Amino acid sequence: MEGTGITRLCQRNLLPTTNPSLTCRFFSDSVIHHNSFHNYNRNFPKFLVSATMEASFKPEEARVPAALPLPTPPVTKFKIAMCQLSVTTDKERNIAHAQQAMEVAADKGAQLILLPEIWNSPYSNDSFPVYAEDIDAGGDASPSTRMLSEVSRSRKITVIGGSIPERSGDKLYNSCCVFGTDGKLLATHRKIHLFDIDIPGKMTFKESRTLTAGERPTIVDTEVGRIGIGICYDIRFQELAAIYAARGAHLLCYPGAFNMTTGPLHWELLQRARAADCQLYVATCSPARDGGSSYVAWGHSTLVGPFGEVLVTTEHEETTLIAEIDYSVIEQRRTYLPFQKQRRGDLYQLVDVDRLNSTGAK
Amino acid sequence: MEGTGITRLCQRNLLPTTNPSLTCRFFSDSVIHHNSFHNYNRNFPKFLVSATMEASFKPEEARVPAALPLPTPPVTKFKIAMCQLSVTTDKERNIAHAQQAMEVAADKGAQLILLPEIWNSPYSNDSFPVYAEDIDAGGDASPSTRMLSEVSRSRKITVIGGSIPERSGDKLYNSCCVFGTDGKLLATHRKIHLFDIDIPGKMTFKESRTLTAGERPTIVDTEVGRIGIGICYDIRFQELAAIYAARGAHLLCYPGAFNMTTGPLHWELLQRARAADCQLYVATCSPARDGGSSYVAWGHSTLVGPFGEVLVTTEHEETTLIAEIDYSVIEQRRTYLPFQKQRRGDLYQLVDVDRLNSTGAK
Repeated sequence: MEGTGITRLCQRNLLPTTNPSLTCRFFSDSVIHHNSFHNYNRNFPKFLVSATMEASFKPEEARVPAALPLPTPPVTKFKIAMCQLSVTTDKERNIAHAQQAMEVAADKGAQLILLPEIWNSPYSNDSFPVYAEDIDAGGDASPSTRMLSEVSRSRKITVIGGSIPERSGDKLYNSCCVFGTDGKLLATHRKIHLFDIDIPGKMTFKESRTLTAGERPTIVDTEVGRIGIGICYDIRFQELAAIYAARGAHLLCYPGAFNMTTGPLHWELLQRARAADCQLYVATCSPARDGGSSYVAWGHSTLVGPFGEVLVTTEHEETTLIAEIDYSVIEQRRTYLPFQKQRRGDLYQLVDVDRLNSTGAK
Repeated sequence: MEGTGITRLCQRNLLPTTNPSLTCRFFSDSVIHHNSFHNYNRNFPKFLVSATMEASFKPEEARVPAALPLPTPPVTKFKIAMCQLSVTTDKERNIAHAQQAMEVAADKGAQLILLPEIWNSPYSNDSFPVYAEDIDAGGDASPSTRMLSEVSRSRKITVIGGSIPERSGDKLYNSCCVFGTDGKLLATHRKIHLFDIDIPGKMTFKESRTLTAGERPTIVDTEVGRIGIGICYDIRFQELAAIYAARGAHLLCYPGAFNMTTGPLHWELLQRARAADCQLYVATCSPARDGGSSYVAWGHSTLVGPFGEVLVTTEHEETTLIAEIDYSVIEQRRTYLPFQKQRRGDLYQLVDVDRLNSTGAK
C-alpha cells in the first residue's frame, strides 16, 4: 500500500535529520546578509557569494528525490540508427521488413537501433486488438518481440523496439520493449499518457477507447547508456523528461507517430525543448508516411543533441537514419550552461513519485 | 518562519481531509479493473473509461497546490508593443528614448508595452552599480521608473518595464517593474535565476558577481490579463513558467538580452517551448544590438501564441513590434490538446513552494 508522492513523504516521516531535501531552511536575515553584494568597487571581490547562494537556493531540492549524478556510460561514442519504416496491414511482412532494416543498420555499425511507434500494425483503434501480442508469454504469442530479441542477440546490439499493441490479461497497451545485446528483454514501457485529442476537422483520436495507460516511467541501463523511454504523446509532458534527467539519463528515446496536424506544429519543437531543457540526447522514430492510411504519420525521425540542436533528421519517406552520439558532449554542455545546478529548490520542486516510492530505484 | 514546500506540507499537517492533493489513493485492483478495456468489438463502448482514468491518474495533483482555472481577463483582444530599444551609456538619453518609443506605441493603440532587459544602462557588472536606482524610494532616486509610471498613467496603458539595475539597501537586483493604467506600481520582479554561464571563448558572464537574486516568482493581475514575469535567464527554467501557468497566467513576459552565442541556439526555442508546454502567450523584448558594447545582445524580440507559434518577430535592429493578442485562443488550444488535464499526478508533482507558503495567494 503506497501513498502518492507528498503523502508518502509525510507517511515516512522523512524529517530534516534524515533527508536533506526536507530540511527546514528559510531566508533568515543572516542568510540574506551573506548573499548580498557589499562592495561596488571594480575588483568585485567574490567572497563566498556563489557557494552561499547555492546553499540558500537549495538547487538540490528542485528534484525530489535529489537528482542523481550522470553515470559513466559503458561507451562514450557510438552509432544510433532510427528506422523510419513503412507499415502495412500485413503483420508478417512488417516483422520481416523491420528485421531487414535492422540488419542493414547493424551492418553499418549501429550499436543502438530505434524503431517507430506501432510498427507491426496499422495505427488505429480497430487494429490494436487484432495485432496485439502477449509480450510476457513471448514465443509464438509475440512474434514481433521474438524477432527483436533474435536480432539484438545475433548482432549484439541494443534495441529500443519502437512500440506494438500489447495484450496483457484483458487489457491492451501501447508498449515499447528494450532488448540488451544478449537478446534479453531489459524493460517494457507502456505508454503513460494516452493520445486523446480533438482538433475539430483536423485530428481526433482517442487511444483510451481501446488502450490502458502504463503505470510508471521506464528508464534502463544498457550497453549504450542510461535511456529513458517515452512513446509519442508522452513527449508532451516535460515532467517525464525532467524526472528521467534527474535519474541520470543520457538519452531519451521516443518512438512516435505525430500526425499531419500536430507534426508540423510541435514534433521538432518538443524534441528540441526536451533536449535543451534536460541537456541530454533525444532520439525519435516515426513510421514512414502512408497517405492512404486512416492515420497519416508525419515522419521526420530525428536525433537532437544536448544543446537542443538537430543532429540528423529526415522527411516522411521510408529511410534509416544513422548518426553518432557522443556522451562527452553532455558534461561539456552542462558545464557551459550549468542550469541543472542553478534551479531554485526553495521556489519549486519536482517530485518523482515513482522513485520516491521505490527503494533504491534509479 | 516558513518551511520550504514539502516540509511545509508536513508542518501544516495537511492530511487527506483538508487537501485533495494529499489524499492517499493508490492503484487498487478495483481501480485498475475499471480502467481496463473489456470489449474489443468495433463499437468501442466507452463506459466511463475517461472519467475513471482521470480520477486514478490524479491529474489535479500534478501541480501542488492544484492548478487554478484560467481567470476571465478584463479584455480578450488587445495590442501589445515590444520596444526593442537601442541602449547607450547616457542614462538620461535612454530614459527619454524609451519614453518616446512608448508614446509612439501607445499612439498606435498598444494597451500593453514591454521593454527590454536593462534598457537604462549598459549590460555589464561595471555598469549595474553605477546605473542602479532605488525603486522603493522613487522620485529622483528612480527617474527610470518615474518615467514608466508617468507614461502608463498619462496614456492609460499597462507597462511591463523591462528591467533596470535596482539598489535596495546594500544589494543590487535586476528588476522588472509593472505599472497599471493608473500609473501605480503593481509589482516588481527581481530576476530569480542569475545569469552565470561560462562557454570558453564565446560567452562568460557572472551576474552573481554584482547582483543578488530575487526571492520569489511574480505574477500580477493587470487590465490586460494575468501576467507572469521572468527576466532573461529565468526563461531557461521551465518550472517557473509551469507554476505561472498553474496560477492562471494568460501571458508570460520575459525582458531578455540573450547574446550572440545563446541567442541563435536557444532564444526562440525556449519561448516557443514555454508557450507550447503551458499553452499561453509568451512575449519577449531584447535591447537592439550594439556591436560595440561589451555584451552584444541577440535582439529578436518575439510574440509566441499558445500553440508555440511565432506570431511576430524581428531581427536585431531598433524597432517596435506591435501585435494583437487574443486570449480566447488559449481556451481553444487547451480544448484541442487537453494535456493540461492529462498529467499524471500519480507519477510526478510540481510543487509551487511560494504559493504553498502563501495564504490565499494566486
